[in-house]
Amino acid sequence: MAYAIDLAAVRAAHERIQHLVHRTAIATNNTVNQSTGLEVFFKPENTQLTGAFKLRGALNAILHLKETNPNCKGVVTHSSGNHGQALSYAAARAKIPCTVVVPENAPSVKVKGIRSHGAKVVLCEATAQARQETCDRLAAQENLTAIPSYNYPDVMSGQGTISLELLDQVPDLDAILVAISGGGLASGVLMAAKSIKPSIKVFIVEPKEKMLEECIRSGERLWPNPPRLMNTIADGMRIQQPGSLTWPIIRDMAEKSTVALEDEEIIAGMKFAFENMKMVVEPSGASTVAAVLSDRFKDLAKEHGLKRVAVIISGGNVDLHNLPW
Amino acid sequence: MAYAIDLAAVRAAHERIQHLVHRTAIATNNTVNQSTGLEVFFKPENTQLTGAFKLRGALNAILHLKETNPNCKGVVTHSSGNHGQALSYAAARAKIPCTVVVPENAPSVKVKGIRSHGAKVVLCEATAQARQETCDRLAAQENLTAIPSYNYPDVMSGQGTISLELLDQVPDLDAILVAISGGGLASGVLMAAKSIKPSIKVFIVEPKEKMLEECIRSGERLWPNPPRLMNTIADGMRIQQPGSLTWPIIRDMAEKSTVALEDEEIIAGMKFAFENMKMVVEPSGASTVAAVLSDRFKDLAKEHGLKRVAVIISGGNVDLHNLPW
Repeated sequence: MAYAIDLAAVRAAHERIQHLVHRTAIATNNTVNQSTGLEVFFKPENTQLTGAFKLRGALNAILHLKETNPNCKGVVTHSSGNHGQALSYAAARAKIPCTVVVPENAPSVKVKGIRSHGAKVVLCEATAQARQETCDRLAAQENLTAIPSYNYPDVMSGQGTISLELLDQVPDLDAILVAISGGGLASGVLMAAKSIKPSIKVFIVEPKEKMLEECIRSGERLWPNPPRLMNTIADGMRIQQPGSLTWPIIRDMAEKSTVALEDEEIIAGMKFAFENMKMVVEPSGASTVAAVLSDRFKDLAKEHGLKRVAVIISGGNVDLHNLPW
Repeated sequence: MAYAIDLAAVRAAHERIQHLVHRTAIATNNTVNQSTGLEVFFKPENTQLTGAFKLRGALNAILHLKETNPNCKGVVTHSSGNHGQALSYAAARAKIPCTVVVPENAPSVKVKGIRSHGAKVVLCEATAQARQETCDRLAAQENLTAIPSYNYPDVMSGQGTISLELLDQVPDLDAILVAISGGGLASGVLMAAKSIKPSIKVFIVEPKEKMLEECIRSGERLWPNPPRLMNTIADGMRIQQPGSLTWPIIRDMAEKSTVALEDEEIIAGMKFAFENMKMVVEPSGASTVAAVLSDRFKDLAKEHGLKRVAVIISGGNVDLHNLPW
C-alpha cells in the first residue's frame, strides 16, 4: 500500500534542511551501558536548534512551501509548544509571517520561545477542538497555509532525517527507541530507518494510557472518539490518537511490543538525565531515557537479541523554575 | 626553572588513566558562535565520570600510589565536593580505603556523591584550618596517604590530560578558557597545552575577589594571609590562593589578562547553559561559559586575534532541588 511519505521524501527533506539544522552529536553514558548491558547511543535532539526535533519537520514544510508557492501570505499552526517554536523559527528564517494558536495551559517557557522567534501568538481554550477551529478560522480569514504539527507529509519526512543521521553516525544499530504523540516523529523515523535497514527494530515509547500496543497488535484504531488529550506529565505526548497519515506507517513498521510508561517513571528518567547525563531534557524527551532503563525493555532486548540501541531524546524545553521534583 | 610537573608527567598520567576516564566529547553551540563571532569548542567535563574533571587527577594519584606503594593502608583528603567524590570513586576502583574530610557547609549533593562511592565521610568546621588539621590528624593516626585536591604533582598532571585530549580533538586552537580555584586544573592544562603548542593562549577565569590578574601581572603572591575562602556562589572556586606548586606554572604560562566575574554573571552563564546548551552545569562549571560570552572576553579575543577557542566546563554536580534562580 502507499504511505504518505517514502525514503525519497526523507532524503529530499535532508537536502533541503541540512544546512539549517544542527546535526546532533551522539552521546554515550557508562552508567546506562553498565546497567542495561547494551551499547546505547543517545541522539540528543534537546540540543537541536529551538530545543527539539520539531525544527526538522517545520523547516522542511516551510522551505518546500516556499519552493512551490513563493508568494504565500503566511503560515499558521496550533501547538502547545515545540512545533510552535520550531515553525516560528523556520518561518522567520524563510521570511514568512507565522501565527501560532496556543492553548491557555501551555508551558510558559514554550510560549516565550514561540514569541522570541517572532511569531504572532493567539491563545485559545485548551481543547483539541478549540485549537483546530481557531487555526482553521485564521487560515481562512487571513489566507494562511496551515502546517499541522504531525499529520502532514513534509513534517513527517523532516522528522525522518533523524534516521539518516543516526544510521550514518552508528551504522550497525539493532534498534531505535522513539517516543510518540501524534506520530510525526515515529512515522518519519520508521520510514527512513526501515527503508535503509529492514532488519532494524523500532520500539515506540508511549504513556500508559495511550493503548498503542493494543492498537498495533490488532491493526485497528481502537481509540475512543472524539480524539482526546491525555493527562500525562509529558506535555509533548498528550495526543492519544496518531494521525491518519502517521498511523499506517506505525501500524505496519513498528515493533508490536511498545514500552508504556507511568508518569513517575518519566520523572525518574528526567532526573536520571539531569543527574547522570548532565542533560536538560523535558518529560517527553526523558521518556525514552526511562524506557531504555526499564525492566520492560530489558526483557525486550533479551527477547530480540539486541546489542546496539539508539535512543532519540526528543526535546529539552522545560521550565527551569518549575521542575517536577 | 623547574616546575612540579612537565609534559612527560601528563603523558604518563594519560597512559595510566585513559581506560578509566571518559574522553569527553567536544560540544558546539550555534548561539555562542554567533554571539561571540568565534568558533567555540566546549570540553564538557560535567559529563566526566563523577561529574567533574577531578576524577583525572584523583585516579592518576591513586594509581601511581598503588604502583609505588602496593601495601598502602588507605588515602585521605579534605574536599568540599568534587575532589572528594573523585577520590572516593578512584579509591574504590583501586580497592584502597578512602576517607574524606568534608566541611559542614558542603552541598549535600556532593556529600551524597562522596558516600555513594564508598568513602568514609568525616565532617569538620568550615574553615581552611580545620579542614587541614583534621586531614593531617587522620593521616597520622591511621597511617593514610594524603592526596590533596590541587597542590600535588600527580593531581596536577592528571588534570592536564584534558589538554592532550583537547589538542587531539581540535588541533588548531588559538586559546583555552579555564577556571581556577587552587590551580590544579589550570596548571595541568597550562603545562600540557603550552608544551605541545607554545603559541596557544590560556586565559584564566576567576571570581572578582580573587585578584589573580594583579598577582600574575606583578609576578607576586599579593594575597592576604592566612589563606581564605571567598564568598562566591561558585562553590568549587572558593580558594583564594593557588598552591605553591600550581602558582609558578600559572604565573609564568597563563595570559596576563584574566576574565574576572561577579556572581550574577556566573548565574547567568549557568542559566544560559541549561536553557541554550541543555547542559547541567554547576556554578564553577558555568564560569567559563559566562566568560566566553562576556564583553571582557570579546575585547581580549579582538586584541589577541583569536578565532578558535576551547572552553573547559569543569563540572556539573549541582543540587537540582536548589537551583540559584
